[in-house]
Amino acid sequence: PESKLPSLGTTIFTQMSALAQKHNAINLSQGFPDFDGPEYLRNRLAYHVSQGANQYAPMTGTAPLREAIAAKTEHIYGYAPDANTDITITAGATESLYIAITALVSKGDEVIAFDPSYDCYAPAVELAGGVMKRIQLQPPEFKVNWAEFADQITDRTKLVIINTPHNPSATVWSHSDVEQLWQTIADKHIFVLSDEVYEHICFAPEGHASVLRHPQLRQRAIAVSSFGKTYHMTGWRVGYCIATAIISAELRKVHQYLTFSITTPVQLALADMLREAPEHWQELPAFYQAKRDRLAQGLANSRLKVLPSQGTYFLLVDYSEVSDLDDVAFCHWLTEHVGVAAIPMSVFCAAPFPHKLIRLCFAKQEATLDAAAERLCQL
Amino acid sequence: PESKLPSLGTTIFTQMSALAQKHNAINLSQGFPDFDGPEYLRNRLAYHVSQGANQYAPMTGTAPLREAIAAKTEHIYGYAPDANTDITITAGATESLYIAITALVSKGDEVIAFDPSYDCYAPAVELAGGVMKRIQLQPPEFKVNWAEFADQITDRTKLVIINTPHNPSATVWSHSDVEQLWQTIADKHIFVLSDEVYEHICFAPEGHASVLRHPQLRQRAIAVSSFGKTYHMTGWRVGYCIATAIISAELRKVHQYLTFSITTPVQLALADMLREAPEHWQELPAFYQAKRDRLAQGLANSRLKVLPSQGTYFLLVDYSEVSDLDDVAFCHWLTEHVGVAAIPMSVFCAAPFPHKLIRLCFAKQEATLDAAAERLCQL
Ligand SMILES: CSCCC(=O)C(=O)O
Ligand SMILES: CSCCC(=O)C(=O)O
Repeated sequence: PESKLPSLGTTIFTQMSALAQKHNAINLSQGFPDFDGPEYLRNRLAYHVSQGANQYAPMTGTAPLREAIAAKTEHIYGYAPDANTDITITAGATESLYIAITALVSKGDEVIAFDPSYDCYAPAVELAGGVMKRIQLQPPEFKVNWAEFADQITDRTKLVIINTPHNPSATVWSHSDVEQLWQTIADKHIFVLSDEVYEHICFAPEGHASVLRHPQLRQRAIAVSSFGKTYHMTGWRVGYCIATAIISAELRKVHQYLTFSITTPVQLALADMLREAPEHWQELPAFYQAKRDRLAQGLANSRLKVLPSQGTYFLLVDYSEVSDLDDVAFCHWLTEHVGVAAIPMSVFCAAPFPHKLIRLCFAKQEATLDAAAERLCQL
Repeated sequence: PESKLPSLGTTIFTQMSALAQKHNAINLSQGFPDFDGPEYLRNRLAYHVSQGANQYAPMTGTAPLREAIAAKTEHIYGYAPDANTDITITAGATESLYIAITALVSKGDEVIAFDPSYDCYAPAVELAGGVMKRIQLQPPEFKVNWAEFADQITDRTKLVIINTPHNPSATVWSHSDVEQLWQTIADKHIFVLSDEVYEHICFAPEGHASVLRHPQLRQRAIAVSSFGKTYHMTGWRVGYCIATAIISAELRKVHQYLTFSITTPVQLALADMLREAPEHWQELPAFYQAKRDRLAQGLANSRLKVLPSQGTYFLLVDYSEVSDLDDVAFCHWLTEHVGVAAIPMSVFCAAPFPHKLIRLCFAKQEATLDAAAERLCQL
């Protein structure tokens, strides 16, 4: 068949994880923990499976899970979405992002996103017939230039895709960034898709700048999160999106014909976890900050230069003292010859990215981080 | 937002299951068992969760599951798809159908489907910008008129969507129907999407007419199945599609940005089940035929006329002796006043469907079927 996505290959995550396995390298590429999630949560999944919760969940998600998310959202962000109409459970955050883009973007609509960005936004926009307009962010701060942002808006702009804490740059937005975004689009018919999967892995003193905190912006926003990162279970594939009832109704039309509903016993286990350990998320910043710091300290005597990381699973390092290879070639070489797999930053960029930066995942046990650092110090 | 799917509401399955719950009716509407799947399978899910199989699966599916599907396919249909390149694990059969349509259908392409058909095909075609052309099937036989079919083919025909055993009509194709299809499209550039989720719930003496048995047609086909029906676990949401490497590569491009990967421990449990009980599917025709016959016999003295069912979970009944209401109104009335929820056949049709037929799900315990039949005999 003629390809609808001719320029796409297999995601970098699949490629690098396969290469890491082939060369028996320490895999700091694809973002996933090498440790397990809470035992209570795992036991609850076994429990619900044994109790026969194995038939279709409601299309929008099970009521206990939607209600627990509504309560948590109110507790953390001071805003209570309606559990019936505003919350939709999806196959990971990935499906939430896809249904939001598919439901909102029509042929010829423009979508503003940042460059670099996470890799699943652009293909969904392309399939919807939309046109991506990218705003370049420059290391090490990856700060939005709001004047440039305003210049990119046209009558055809339909959607802005934001992401904080930001994968891959590991930077975060401040509350004033969110306010700037609102001021820039307030008088226009523009929606905001906000990828917040790392909401609880944020090291900024002022905390995570969720769009859900913003009384006006949240009327126009689709906030996306997931349980994979929060509970260290990236393989469970349950995410969700929060949006007003009117927007959610459109997202659900796509969801119901795309996956219909999400694994029932997993939803019920997650609902139990949210109810029984409602403060679990408060442990996460310190837990992950210790891992970040351990990897950064392990690299202190290397020839790699560590950039600041304010959130996510990731640390960027500059390898320009070590090699002249471009980042893709360097990551292949590193996996094969040094035994550490990483992700080249340029794969997240549409424009040429002339920096020598790679992304390392620190969601790993201390022994893994120490072993990787030891190898990287030999560079 | 302006709706991309303006004519769509909530699926009939969601509506009727909610109505059944509200009126405490016996729910023979949405197709799901009211009994549980194999204990071994449930135990294996608990096992893999406890063993830490909780991080991302490979994008295409776990190797043990793909290999087990390849072996089963060879055993049953005499054709061994390549486990690496030809099989993709998805979020239920629903995602497989969606990615096949999205990958293959471009703006203006024509898609031939039958009327009635399962409800998720048309919205996916609409989102892809395709044009549905429907071939009317008439009760009670719902037979394809191959001359009419050939007349519908044009230069723009890209895809034909078939489904056997057929939901909602409960009829099946013969092997000669598959051959007829092949003869009709052999010299044209047309793909075939074959929804075979009820492959093991087929009561026809000659067995299930899978496109995978047909040496030429399977080169052009995407065969879709799932584990929900086969293992009585509709809530587990794991399906798959089988297609040549070239077609699969295009489907996977969509899948990787739509759900990325499927719940890891569920995949591993299913792989164990396929390996340990490779003949499980052989029990299913007799198991479900007994349920079908029990419901049909329970209705023998009613004023409902039972149509033949050759496969699926479903039995169609004609209520024209009982009521003049149209089928949607009749199903609402039946749920509220008789306490039995069913699905009106017209919701599966694009053209007016002037028959008084409703669909009953017999994937239920005997007590449930008897209680429903008793209520329906009072009509
Ligand atoms: C969906 S696989 C990619 C995991 C991830 O979020 C990342 O590595 O950036
Ligand atoms: C995905 S919910 C619908 C279940 C089903 O296959 C049916 O009732 O036809």
